[in-house]
Amino acid sequence: MLNDTQKPADISDVVPIATSRRNFLLSASLTAVGAGTLIACGKASPDVRAQTGVPAGASGGTMGAHETAAPASALSASAKADAMDAMHEKGIKAFPAKTEGRGNQIFEPRMDKGVKVFDITAKVVQWEVEPGRKVEAWTYNGVVPAPQIRVRQGDRMRLVLKNELPESTAIHFHGLELPNNQDGVPFITQPPVKPGESYTYEFTVPNAGSHMYHSHHNSAKQVGLGLLGAIIVEPRRPRAIEKVDVDYVMILNDGAHGYTLNGKGFPATEPISAKLGQKIRVRFMNEGMMIHPMHLHGMHMTVIDKDGWPQPQPWKCDTLNIAPGERWDVIVNCNNPGTWAFHCHILPHAETEHGMFGMVTALIVTA
Amino acid sequence: MLNDTQKPADISDVVPIATSRRNFLLSASLTAVGAGTLIACGKASPDVRAQTGVPAGASGGTMGAHETAAPASALSASAKADAMDAMHEKGIKAFPAKTEGRGNQIFEPRMDKGVKVFDITAKVVQWEVEPGRKVEAWTYNGVVPAPQIRVRQGDRMRLVLKNELPESTAIHFHGLELPNNQDGVPFITQPPVKPGESYTYEFTVPNAGSHMYHSHHNSAKQVGLGLLGAIIVEPRRPRAIEKVDVDYVMILNDGAHGYTLNGKGFPATEPISAKLGQKIRVRFMNEGMMIHPMHLHGMHMTVIDKDGWPQPQPWKCDTLNIAPGERWDVIVNCNNPGTWAFHCHILPHAETEHGMFGMVTALIVTA
Amino acid sequence: MLNDTQKPADISDVVPIATSRRNFLLSASLTAVGAGTLIACGKASPDVRAQTGVPAGASGGTMGAHETAAPASALSASAKADAMDAMHEKGIKAFPAKTEGRGNQIFEPRMDKGVKVFDITAKVVQWEVEPGRKVEAWTYNGVVPAPQIRVRQGDRMRLVLKNELPESTAIHFHGLELPNNQDGVPFITQPPVKPGESYTYEFTVPNAGSHMYHSHHNSAKQVGLGLLGAIIVEPRRPRAIEKVDVDYVMILNDGAHGYTLNGKGFPATEPISAKLGQKIRVRFMNEGMMIHPMHLHGMHMTVIDKDGWPQPQPWKCDTLNIAPGERWDVIVNCNNPGTWAFHCHILPHAETEHGMFGMVTALIVTA
Repeated sequence: MLNDTQKPADISDVVPIATSRRNFLLSASLTAVGAGTLIACGKASPDVRAQTGVPAGASGGTMGAHETAAPASALSASAKADAMDAMHEKGIKAFPAKTEGRGNQIFEPRMDKGVKVFDITAKVVQWEVEPGRKVEAWTYNGVVPAPQIRVRQGDRMRLVLKNELPESTAIHFHGLELPNNQDGVPFITQPPVKPGESYTYEFTVPNAGSHMYHSHHNSAKQVGLGLLGAIIVEPRRPRAIEKVDVDYVMILNDGAHGYTLNGKGFPATEPISAKLGQKIRVRFMNEGMMIHPMHLHGMHMTVIDKDGWPQPQPWKCDTLNIAPGERWDVIVNCNNPGTWAFHCHILPHAETEHGMFGMVTALIVTA
Repeated sequence: MLNDTQKPADISDVVPIATSRRNFLLSASLTAVGAGTLIACGKASPDVRAQTGVPAGASGGTMGAHETAAPASALSASAKADAMDAMHEKGIKAFPAKTEGRGNQIFEPRMDKGVKVFDITAKVVQWEVEPGRKVEAWTYNGVVPAPQIRVRQGDRMRLVLKNELPESTAIHFHGLELPNNQDGVPFITQPPVKPGESYTYEFTVPNAGSHMYHSHHNSAKQVGLGLLGAIIVEPRRPRAIEKVDVDYVMILNDGAHGYTLNGKGFPATEPISAKLGQKIRVRFMNEGMMIHPMHLHGMHMTVIDKDGWPQPQPWKCDTLNIAPGERWDVIVNCNNPGTWAFHCHILPHAETEHGMFGMVTALIVTA
Repeated sequence: MLNDTQKPADISDVVPIATSRRNFLLSASLTAVGAGTLIACGKASPDVRAQTGVPAGASGGTMGAHETAAPASALSASAKADAMDAMHEKGIKAFPAKTEGRGNQIFEPRMDKGVKVFDITAKVVQWEVEPGRKVEAWTYNGVVPAPQIRVRQGDRMRLVLKNELPESTAIHFHGLELPNNQDGVPFITQPPVKPGESYTYEFTVPNAGSHMYHSHHNSAKQVGLGLLGAIIVEPRRPRAIEKVDVDYVMILNDGAHGYTLNGKGFPATEPISAKLGQKIRVRFMNEGMMIHPMHLHGMHMTVIDKDGWPQPQPWKCDTLNIAPGERWDVIVNCNNPGTWAFHCHILPHAETEHGMFGMVTALIVTA
């Protein structure tokens, strides 16, 4: 993980390191059939680099889209390719990169006479999207996405919202079929919650499925800045197909923080891990403004639910288009070992000349 | 409805009015569980407003996206929040705002020896999208969307198009499986209809379902400016699921007139009303250039048809992605009383800092 | 086909020619019911044209979007309409326009001891998208899309990639469930293939269906420039519904070459032809960055597969939204004779004031 912005510029920031730093990145065990002319990964010597004039110091961490690579005119075609590849490798080897803050973790409620109570403070924080890139985020409890609420159909739950934002706000439970006065739309179902004030939602959890909670006031801005999270409602009677080994929520976003999965951009995104033969459920949720067709390499996805409602019959795909506001639940039978790219297939949301970024993660199936 | 541009600037234009002006906007009956610190809607006094320097006169009608709120530097955080909320409330209280012209109304044909005849004049008008915002529209019979044609499978229908536009044009019946010479594509199936000329389409109505009629000549411009409407073909033998209390066509658009539902932007959009227990059919049609994932609050939608063809089995969702040219028919069982927001979930198509606008309406279920 | 850039400017370049140059463009047999005032196609006389000052010489081939029509001020409304119509007609009459190079043709493998071997050279060429418009293309074997690979489940295949590009590259087999080391993602499953080097992929073909092969290195650029093609895997046991008369792959793109179908923009796109009563399979694949809702006139499409996997039950539509990375297979029962427009329904991807362009083709059903 080359996320050391204090370190003096060093050629090792640019030159690929042959040793695999993460054993699930299988570069150490690369094989290729008949690749007689294949060169070793990271073959370019420091000497080659030195003579190309690559501005190594300019590339601390993953290179941002606004940074420029070495001046083209100064480089031979081969050296230019090597320099580009080094940037690509560096990003991948940094994955999963450490950053401050982690959203979407299970929200443990406190109990009050049988009611599950979730205390939420809406507040502005600095949020590290990728190593070294901090942005202003409007958050529930300081993280993006908000803590993940998990309740069960029929539960009584209470959500106490304290507003420490500079604007009024309100919470809409997107997908829950609640009484109208719990719907969270200022001036239609409730007054706005002013800065400094608190507001309480309380209801019996109705329909099951993958839902979201987010601001419904000045929402293009407030949701774009991070006021969003998952609310998963376990069904009273789970179906057989829902019995999985890993249950993963993946929230897609493309607002003020750039292209993110669960509030982070590659290489700070979180890999999903499973053992060979295990089943994973991925709950895609789009809190952004654009579609994101998510593509999984190596294995297909079996679509089971849309917006928390079962599809009449499961169906298979490898690229699933998620539109804003939608949730789609899929099952992956992890029957193919390896590290598999898992990314938005709008390629400019996933890769630049400087390497992968944004909406990229990996599903790692270990034997 | 604060749509009084002639009235002198008045503080009442900005300060929220506590009395609910529309009983389906339930602000008068707002309830919140445990909202001990909840302030009353519209608590800010005129005095607070006066001292904030809110330029009340600047906000006649719904504030446009280009207008700016009060200078931020001059306001305390609390007063700024109040000023923003006042704009939001004003827009919502104005709903449904009166505007001149109403499209998508049933087109009563004249009968000619058993043939249903629809006389259409394509012409340029000024069209009021929201209170006070008039735009140039290219229309069929002066309205956007065009009058809604309702025929039955097997009907003989004739459409006589008179072209009073400054360009040639032609009508394509999008979704109808017509003889080739009725398909409306200049130079492929017919000559263009020149300015000042007339052209007649006549056919026996083939397949049932939710279809569209629109220009197929210089169409990016002509459809974008309003030459579009719904043609609904009743089936010979309706399915049980099609027996509904309200049958509503909702045409989405994002062309030259901005983000609209049936030719109007919020708060001039039209609410859909039903009694508790009734069933509504919504026929979504996208005549624009972007996807619009439509989200209904409070109740799910059961998808029954795509482009006029039954889905193999109905399926449920709360957010339905409608792409350009698509039609999707859904059923809503109105089992949850209240006023429910119903909007595109690409949030910048539905809300700005100045409040809701564009692709927002409401489903009102009364007990 | 008015694709004669060497010819001196001639009024015949602009004036519509009444005689149909392609009998499937049915202008010679246009009929219209009750079209009493219908003018003949191409009525405008050369004299009218001459006096309008249409710069005929400026419109060799199809007019590009950057070219301007005759100065508006100099033309009467009627003459302006005629001038616009002439441009529209010219584009349609030019269809299908000849251009240099044709992609997506069947790739005949060489056999090596039972292995189907596909030799691919990645290289930069000039590619003619529409008559006279040449662009830089990064290609597999000099064409866009790449040659179409057709193999069968269980086949052993080898793909030998020679990289003559100025950048490193790699090939990902999008949709194939391969061993990890054949997945084509540099630094995760293999090293990048450097300029001048070769790399070999070899595997037993796993799952059936409509898949793609494309670059997975600096892919936003490399795929955008043309490093993409179809790989169709015939199933071991075809379903009855798969028995068709025409099996057509349509690759959608919107990258550096503009809006294209199989690497060409209208009028250089390729029509699909069938006899009345035949069945066509269209395999849509999106290699671009935007959705493209493809609309077929005159007949519906029956959707059978998504990403190579059968849908639980076939379903019907006339407009099918294809997102980046997705493949959708449909069947068309060609039961309606005529020339049918077939285009992306995001209208600015299909038509400008100068006529149809980009993502437009036709399905021609002959009796």
